[in-house]
Amino acid sequence: MGDFNESVVLDAIRRVPEGLSRVELSALTGLSAQTVSNICRRLLNEGLAREGGTTSSGAGKPRRLLQVNAEARYAVGVHLDPAVVTLVVLDLLGKVVARAQQPTPEAAEPDPTLAGMSESINQLIADSGVPSDRILGLGIAAPGPVDVESGLVIAPPQLADWGRVPLRDYLAGATKLPVLLDKDVIAAAVAERWTGVAADTGNFLFFYLGTGSGMGLVVDDVVLRGFSGNAGEVGGVYAACTTSALVGEAIEEGVLGAEFKPAGPRDAEQSLRELCRRAAAGNVTAGEIIDRWAVRVGRGVVAAATLVDSEMIVFGGPIWPQLAERFLPVVRGIVESSPFVKKIHPTAVTTTGLGVDVGAIGAACLVLDQMLAVQPQSLLLG
Amino acid sequence: MGDFNESVVLDAIRRVPEGLSRVELSALTGLSAQTVSNICRRLLNEGLAREGGTTSSGAGKPRRLLQVNAEARYAVGVHLDPAVVTLVVLDLLGKVVARAQQPTPEAAEPDPTLAGMSESINQLIADSGVPSDRILGLGIAAPGPVDVESGLVIAPPQLADWGRVPLRDYLAGATKLPVLLDKDVIAAAVAERWTGVAADTGNFLFFYLGTGSGMGLVVDDVVLRGFSGNAGEVGGVYAACTTSALVGEAIEEGVLGAEFKPAGPRDAEQSLRELCRRAAAGNVTAGEIIDRWAVRVGRGVVAAATLVDSEMIVFGGPIWPQLAERFLPVVRGIVESSPFVKKIHPTAVTTTGLGVDVGAIGAACLVLDQMLAVQPQSLLLG
Repeated sequence: MGDFNESVVLDAIRRVPEGLSRVELSALTGLSAQTVSNICRRLLNEGLAREGGTTSSGAGKPRRLLQVNAEARYAVGVHLDPAVVTLVVLDLLGKVVARAQQPTPEAAEPDPTLAGMSESINQLIADSGVPSDRILGLGIAAPGPVDVESGLVIAPPQLADWGRVPLRDYLAGATKLPVLLDKDVIAAAVAERWTGVAADTGNFLFFYLGTGSGMGLVVDDVVLRGFSGNAGEVGGVYAACTTSALVGEAIEEGVLGAEFKPAGPRDAEQSLRELCRRAAAGNVTAGEIIDRWAVRVGRGVVAAATLVDSEMIVFGGPIWPQLAERFLPVVRGIVESSPFVKKIHPTAVTTTGLGVDVGAIGAACLVLDQMLAVQPQSLLLG
Repeated sequence: MGDFNESVVLDAIRRVPEGLSRVELSALTGLSAQTVSNICRRLLNEGLAREGGTTSSGAGKPRRLLQVNAEARYAVGVHLDPAVVTLVVLDLLGKVVARAQQPTPEAAEPDPTLAGMSESINQLIADSGVPSDRILGLGIAAPGPVDVESGLVIAPPQLADWGRVPLRDYLAGATKLPVLLDKDVIAAAVAERWTGVAADTGNFLFFYLGTGSGMGLVVDDVVLRGFSGNAGEVGGVYAACTTSALVGEAIEEGVLGAEFKPAGPRDAEQSLRELCRRAAAGNVTAGEIIDRWAVRVGRGVVAAATLVDSEMIVFGGPIWPQLAERFLPVVRGIVESSPFVKKIHPTAVTTTGLGVDVGAIGAACLVLDQMLAVQPQSLLLG
């Protein structure tokens, strides 16, 4: 129970950057003054917390505030998207302190990508200047489907030649760090919960738009993983919504020339950016292709939000910035006209505050979440 | 922590009807021999458990087995379907010990239904012979949408004239029992988890076919409720799948005569039964209407099962017995041909073992679940 109560206190102070007094902590957590006092001393000794000024509200003597010591621990996150690899180092409060990005090698075999990832991770850690003994671990956000138990990526649609790749164990060997792996959309949802726009709601879904699409679901304050760790797959519904399918549509309708035909995920993303530019410049057909896509996504997302009774829908992913302006009004219109939303409760539709790095930030948050968040399930015996 | 560990032991023994020895309990739960011994004494004193024979496996002296005393406590469940009200009394192992059923009054106002429900509940308890001090409480399974916090039913599509009805507080007043209310599909999922075919999986969805349709979702061993307690609504997708819409289709296509036009949910259910009989007797158009419905349900259910990564899909509800024979092969075909299912893991499609009472059994299981199941969330302080 000691560790559990420590997590409860740490979780309380990390949510209030200016800090909380011991009296406030006791009131917030339900722990006795003596227990709070002991935990605070332990957190100070471990360097996880620090004293941060005083509060002088009320008539009593000023109370010292306990704050999270953001530089006490760090987590590394790497997001493997079929088009781009993104890496970040986060501090304990979820702030990005170092970042790198590089194109995903367009090789059929995984080896160059794996080698490039491990090299970049070690380089980023060295460049960041973070002492290695303060790094809690490495999180990986991988395209689905994954085998979470074995730490495998299973032939994602855009990297189909990969077969079953032991990504987690490879990077554990190459970096000597504890490593966690989850699907990209699940990692993104963890990021939103830990440090994003959805930090204050226990019921939201994250819609990820990248080379493929998927959803990360948080219901009743729990990130859903599902039987095989692949919750959030929308492949069946959105097969027509990969970047390459959309670019194909644009070429067929003559909006893009044949030279935009993509050879791989990176090309497809570049071509899609061009489609968005032409829509923004007034090309009607280009705009219609994007709007039809927005309608399909909007219908899918409102069905999912209704099914799990979400309070908020958050959009993000590598190609979202190009799409947001046209997508948001279309999707909001569909959500607001849903009978469920009209009858039961409003549902916010918004953009991630974490930008295109949300997958990589989520990967690092997997580590923070596992090691620091309150995990009532951990109390189950066995 | 005492109550929590007691729940852990009780949960372990209720899953093994022949009983467990103290040594087995210690091994299963991770609790020390001394703690297990103390808890067993407490459970015996409270009458919740009893000694049930001995096991003589191995060389040591025979060990006495601890069993749940099924008659120690009971729970009452009532399921309000727009067409029928079903009531059950369950013992501690989830066995139905008393049951009653009556048509839902076809009045526009809720008053006759509320009065009938409370009268039937009190009558059933009296008839069951169960001592009232052994009844833990009453669970209500209500058609959605509901307001779980306030215990209200909010104008369900088939009972739209009801407005906001304080069902929970009304029945609490009329029965003097502690009362819990949840949506019917959520209650059905709790029943499957507690005592049904899905008791051994932590990831399944329950598809309920009654006057309306809905899903109960269990993901990562947790029953999903959502922001407003209305998880599982499929109204948007299945508006064309109410019994009355289907009967309307059958009348339009000349399979049923105008005399089958339903005046309310009870009529619609009767007319639907007639449609099923005609399909079974070889009427091709009747069969096609049902098969098209099965395809719509199959597509919806596979999209949902993929989204939350379910291992099993369970069908049930008042009209399921009429539909199962035609529905099961169609839905299984759709599920088995899903790219996700083919690539990631098989997904079983099956019928509830709890029959048409699954909603009422689920209502009673809400009480058993709340009072007896292991609830790690309850350990969160506050």
